[in-house]
Amino acid sequence: TSLKIGMIPADGIGKEVLPAAQRVIEALGSAIPKPEFIPLAAGWEEFNKNGKALPDETVRVLKEECDAAMFGSVSSPSHKVPGYSSPIVALRKHLDLYANVRPVQSVSGTPGPDVNMVIVRENTECLYVKREEIKDLPDGSKIAIAERQITSTASERIAKLAFELALRRGAERATPGAPETFWKGPPQVTIVHKSNVLAVTDGLFRESARKVYEENKDRYSGVKVNEQLVDSFVYRAFREPEIFDVCVAPNLYGDIISDGAAALVGSLGLVPSVNAGDNFVMGEPVHGSAPDIEGKNIANPIASIRSAALLLSWLGYTDAANRINVAVDNVIRSGIATPDLGGKNSTTEVTDAILKNL
Amino acid sequence: TSLKIGMIPADGIGKEVLPAAQRVIEALGSAIPKPEFIPLAAGWEEFNKNGKALPDETVRVLKEECDAAMFGSVSSPSHKVPGYSSPIVALRKHLDLYANVRPVQSVSGTPGPDVNMVIVRENTECLYVKREEIKDLPDGSKIAIAERQITSTASERIAKLAFELALRRGAERATPGAPETFWKGPPQVTIVHKSNVLAVTDGLFRESARKVYEENKDRYSGVKVNEQLVDSFVYRAFREPEIFDVCVAPNLYGDIISDGAAALVGSLGLVPSVNAGDNFVMGEPVHGSAPDIEGKNIANPIASIRSAALLLSWLGYTDAANRINVAVDNVIRSGIATPDLGGKNSTTEVTDAILKNL
Ligand SMILES: CC(C)[C@H](C(=O)O)[C@@H](O)C(=O)O
Ligand SMILES: CC(C)[C@H](C(=O)O)[C@@H](O)C(=O)O
Repeated sequence: TSLKIGMIPADGIGKEVLPAAQRVIEALGSAIPKPEFIPLAAGWEEFNKNGKALPDETVRVLKEECDAAMFGSVSSPSHKVPGYSSPIVALRKHLDLYANVRPVQSVSGTPGPDVNMVIVRENTECLYVKREEIKDLPDGSKIAIAERQITSTASERIAKLAFELALRRGAERATPGAPETFWKGPPQVTIVHKSNVLAVTDGLFRESARKVYEENKDRYSGVKVNEQLVDSFVYRAFREPEIFDVCVAPNLYGDIISDGAAALVGSLGLVPSVNAGDNFVMGEPVHGSAPDIEGKNIANPIASIRSAALLLSWLGYTDAANRINVAVDNVIRSGIATPDLGGKNSTTEVTDAILKNL
Repeated sequence: TSLKIGMIPADGIGKEVLPAAQRVIEALGSAIPKPEFIPLAAGWEEFNKNGKALPDETVRVLKEECDAAMFGSVSSPSHKVPGYSSPIVALRKHLDLYANVRPVQSVSGTPGPDVNMVIVRENTECLYVKREEIKDLPDGSKIAIAERQITSTASERIAKLAFELALRRGAERATPGAPETFWKGPPQVTIVHKSNVLAVTDGLFRESARKVYEENKDRYSGVKVNEQLVDSFVYRAFREPEIFDVCVAPNLYGDIISDGAAALVGSLGLVPSVNAGDNFVMGEPVHGSAPDIEGKNIANPIASIRSAALLLSWLGYTDAANRINVAVDNVIRSGIATPDLGGKNSTTEVTDAILKNL
């Protein structure tokens, strides 16, 4: 059998880092089923060419023919363009990829704080339901309203994934011979919210997460639960990042805090993610399309390569994932690095070095 | 004449840091009109005692008798308590304090990055309108919706304040003999938004801010305007905080990014703010009520003392404000510090040292 991976580079440096990830996956040999890569269109450039940011055919192929996917990065206009809507947000919805899992980890033996957290971002609702309206008022001014939706179903589902992930990470750490990690405590889940202001919506998110814990106390008895208001979270993540293990957050807070956490490990160019549902998983570097460095072969491929590893581990190919991660860590320690990390190497050079370490 | 200042310590360490600010204001002598302090009730403790988080009498006295106010900090329950609503959010609304101005500045001659930014947070709308509803669905699950409101009126008003502030800061820097600041460029306003997802609401915020600039091009021709998505903002603020001068943001983003920026200068206990409207101004440290250190006389009084300075400068008493700020900077450089900064001094000792430097 083969492993069919839909490849959606989309815009900007997505077109440089996704091929790098593909080279690494191809080099894994028999550690995984033979990979097949299916190039698929989406993005702002695609919209300008063919009028659709997310072609129906892309969604169809993903659903019917692919085992998993990799997404690059998307450029969005900062103003409203009729007919345009972010394809990554739409893909998360279409494929019911309800979790965006973003591990932010520093590499032992490199400078900087000890970070070993995973942000589990709810991926389908909150302000991302994009129900927005605008009206003219009698005085000529305008009023716009957006709806923020939080449901118990989506909140419980994401909380469950966060608790399971905390358990799994705990088990991995406890495996004999497991690599040492910065996080040394028992599994911990931090619920991120702002229920001191949004008592109803964030109140529901918080309660739903606690309910998952209470109703599965046997299973999660070894997990420590705490919570943090989102503003304090950003502050504390910078002051004492070592206090966080798994952090679960509604969509928009998750978006903001994962970019923030990325700053702790030196570059957004290092931070991977998967968009995961019960039936599909899609790797995606956390960085954007970075039009300023597009086409220069200097984009950091590590976020994409780590996203490929995360995707493979999600599919159960833990050994293949570990091999990639060990190779990446070695290259980071060796000092071979793209300019975002202060290095002078190209995308190709960093990728070659990782391949050599594999 | 006198300067009547309503004092609302509210909860937790608010009751320790507000008296410190009062001592400093009292020590200013003839630099300001004779201050009179009027103690006023509000907060979670007040709610538990008398059933109202913000007594009508407090609002009445502020409106009818006070020239300005100082607010401490409020403890909120993290779950919905019938009848309770955050008094600070309510005060901002009642007094039409539409701007929350939060300068985040590092002190020259101390370690850490060069930071000299001001976050101008819209203070009356966004998700803080607190229009939330919850419903049971047929399957027994729940759905909650919150409304996020952005109006052109509020957005233009806050943008105007941000542009004016950028100009004023520029003029202050250009004054002969002005203290050297980290920000060396021309005045700059960064519009913070997320219009790649919230094209309508954040689109309106962004357009309104740009419109203020376009319609006053003569006045603001010396101001550089740029923009930053809120997730990238958090990332860049940590990587290169020196690139930001004045940053204007909708309410919730402003809340999150100002806590984040506070981490850059070593402690939330250093960051002041004013809630400002066209007719009233209220100083407020950015930190919370910190119940864990309440009553120990170790809370950092500097955020409150700097809030007093900011309030006085807002009222036009620039010299008095500068005297406070210079004294605070000297004390920070001297190493006299509360535990949040790694020091061993008490609230009283830090306040005494500031008074000695005044
Ligand atoms: C591009 C944008 C729509 C997206 C988001 O906000 O989710 C991005 O910031 C991300 O984090 O994947
Ligand atoms: C206490 C809370 C309601 C408040 C807010 O979110 O505005 C606080 O975080 C602040 O920044 O002043």
